[in-house]
Amino acid sequence: MAEFDAIEFIEKTKQGDSPDADEVRDFVRAFMEGHVSDAQAAAWMMAVCLRGLPDEGAVALTKSMLESGAHIDLSSLEHTADKHSTGGVGDNVSLVACPLAAAAGATVAKMSGRGLGHTGGTIDKLESIPGFRTAVTPRDFTTQARNIGLVIASQAVDMAPADKRFYALRHQTATVDSIPLIAASIMSKKLAAGASAIVLDVKCGRGAFMRTAEEAQHLARLLLALGRAHDRAMAAAITPMNQPLGRAVGNVLEVREAIEALSGNGPEDLLTLSIATAAKMVALSGAVATEDEARAAVEEALASGAGLAKLQAMVRAQGGDPRVVESPSRLPRAEHVELLRAPVAGRVTAINPLRISEAVDALGGSRRRGRQAIEHAAGVVLLRKTGDEIPDAGEPLAEIHAPSRATLEEARTLVGMAIRIGDTSAPVPPPFEIEWVD
Amino acid sequence: MAEFDAIEFIEKTKQGDSPDADEVRDFVRAFMEGHVSDAQAAAWMMAVCLRGLPDEGAVALTKSMLESGAHIDLSSLEHTADKHSTGGVGDNVSLVACPLAAAAGATVAKMSGRGLGHTGGTIDKLESIPGFRTAVTPRDFTTQARNIGLVIASQAVDMAPADKRFYALRHQTATVDSIPLIAASIMSKKLAAGASAIVLDVKCGRGAFMRTAEEAQHLARLLLALGRAHDRAMAAAITPMNQPLGRAVGNVLEVREAIEALSGNGPEDLLTLSIATAAKMVALSGAVATEDEARAAVEEALASGAGLAKLQAMVRAQGGDPRVVESPSRLPRAEHVELLRAPVAGRVTAINPLRISEAVDALGGSRRRGRQAIEHAAGVVLLRKTGDEIPDAGEPLAEIHAPSRATLEEARTLVGMAIRIGDTSAPVPPPFEIEWVD
Repeated sequence: MAEFDAIEFIEKTKQGDSPDADEVRDFVRAFMEGHVSDAQAAAWMMAVCLRGLPDEGAVALTKSMLESGAHIDLSSLEHTADKHSTGGVGDNVSLVACPLAAAAGATVAKMSGRGLGHTGGTIDKLESIPGFRTAVTPRDFTTQARNIGLVIASQAVDMAPADKRFYALRHQTATVDSIPLIAASIMSKKLAAGASAIVLDVKCGRGAFMRTAEEAQHLARLLLALGRAHDRAMAAAITPMNQPLGRAVGNVLEVREAIEALSGNGPEDLLTLSIATAAKMVALSGAVATEDEARAAVEEALASGAGLAKLQAMVRAQGGDPRVVESPSRLPRAEHVELLRAPVAGRVTAINPLRISEAVDALGGSRRRGRQAIEHAAGVVLLRKTGDEIPDAGEPLAEIHAPSRATLEEARTLVGMAIRIGDTSAPVPPPFEIEWVD
Repeated sequence: MAEFDAIEFIEKTKQGDSPDADEVRDFVRAFMEGHVSDAQAAAWMMAVCLRGLPDEGAVALTKSMLESGAHIDLSSLEHTADKHSTGGVGDNVSLVACPLAAAAGATVAKMSGRGLGHTGGTIDKLESIPGFRTAVTPRDFTTQARNIGLVIASQAVDMAPADKRFYALRHQTATVDSIPLIAASIMSKKLAAGASAIVLDVKCGRGAFMRTAEEAQHLARLLLALGRAHDRAMAAAITPMNQPLGRAVGNVLEVREAIEALSGNGPEDLLTLSIATAAKMVALSGAVATEDEARAAVEEALASGAGLAKLQAMVRAQGGDPRVVESPSRLPRAEHVELLRAPVAGRVTAINPLRISEAVDALGGSRRRGRQAIEHAAGVVLLRKTGDEIPDAGEPLAEIHAPSRATLEEARTLVGMAIRIGDTSAPVPPPFEIEWVD
């Protein structure tokens, strides 16, 4: 490679004169080889934030970040499928949809992350199951996918190290919220994880990274383009994140909710989204011929308990206590569970997911606030959701699961601030809707 | 100081929501103390390039960079004046205007820089005088200003170290061309040099950093505001830089031209600008009561030879051979001087200053191309300027002063490319004009 001219590359992007694919590739390579400084990379990413990067550049960035590290080879497996959510509050869809998709014929091989910002992470949730190992070798990852059809693990190999370095820089330099950079970061890791079908859930709303429908559409379309440029079967949904998904927010509480959902007893929004996601995974994986067959297979897996059995098989295979799946009461429990009661009668008009997330932080249920260890059992269960009527003052609104009395007060205040109660004449919010993007 | 939140500061600037003066000050301080990384500073500067920085922020940035280092205290001197040019090709105004201003009553205490990019620097020019010392202690700087009324030196103290660090980062990260960053960089150093009156020459045109009248106006206004915010008497002119100023380009050649100009025998554009600049310096310094008196004093200093005598006094005081001022033929000479002749008759319609600058580079006359030492005698003398008629093919257009035959060919080609000859019916370009900005 001729010496890479970082200054010219940055200048070009700054001028809104898009660098071409070769230039982006050379930039990533030069950065990883130490010929482009962190300062240069940061300046470039700020230019991308403010000037954009066309799809061709995002494809090249994704490809270069993917190729900077190792990837999992799933080519010996059939019907592989993965899913990814851009992150929300109370989003435990992976714990429901992946077992259902596996039970319905897909080979679900998923790499997940930890909580990010105000959002929870599937890995943190799984680790709240006593004994569960999320660190899995590439060989075990593939073997478990073959034998059980379901594996969810943290990164098994050094995937997309260029993304790791860019990602760290973005968080230091206020260059997180660029859609091309977000999309390339997500897809470089998803592609490295090896599945041939990928279903994306782009959350949209006040509890999501994408606040507007326009941003969510842009991100969804770009994610699809990046996956398709690498020959993956892709689907992307935009789903609401204006209140927490389901009722539970907190690691153990979300695992318990997922087990209940797989037992046929889950909140409607969580079940709706999990079934739709699982059906797309099955259909795209090629395990069945049509979307209708996929949906029927998923609904059968739910009704028969086959999905729940898959979850149990995965828990067992990854060292977790399989009895929790039959008896969720075996999961760790918080020392103090208190009810938050409605101060007035009326109707729930909003539940701010960011405040609920802050309450979980206050309870010790996240890695935010600089904590090393998570209080897995901490969290909030919403007994009322947006649109629900509160016939009388004093009705229970939420359970607060606190590891200590000391953390309870702040959490109670935050949950109280999160849940807005209006007049019963307030309009009922629209039902939970999934918008699939082409 | 509470811990500085660099991410929030960058984000704010990125959103176009201008940081306030305190935040800018805290940012510079945190950067100098190592709490803000180069990557963060680079991302911020890119955000400034693309989103701007209001005057209040630029004032705070200038002040913080100024206060990051030492400054020269000229408070014991009266009528102190300085000048600064934003950089052009063949711009030796300092060598003419400063002696004239000193002879007309101002105390000229000037810190200068080396060549930057395609432009020459006054320090490089002065160092082409045998023996001339540009490194001067703060005490000697002040003493010489008091005794002779004229000193031009390279930075005598560690002025504006924050600017030095930002400046280096800007050059690596394609964040050079932001007017607020340029203005703050210039003024932090000018303010540190201590003079109470500052005259600015903002070059505009294809040989300048400011290409359009709009950019030049913006920069000039901001420079004035930054100086006035620090209680300096300020003036700024916008002057054309579409062809080299004067006839000489190259260190020794420009010194010789300056000596000739001070002897009353200089190119019209150089004399016009030097007299106007010197008159402003004298007027702003308070050495005389009115602009008219200042102009008369400067013209008298030129006519009487008092300006030339000041130059000689400065050369002597700073260790240079004072005889060169009487006999410029004592200056170093290039081994080879060749004429470039007109290929056709006609009229000179353009002389591209960037190409002339490249020719001087090719001759070894600059620090570009990675050279350690400058060939001081190398350069180009333009025998014809834009608008001049060429009665016959074969007329001399330029002298090329080359230290070796090896460098001559490339320089000859570049000078040939620089000088465009059109039909004699081509319109005569407008005369050299100075636009003073309020």
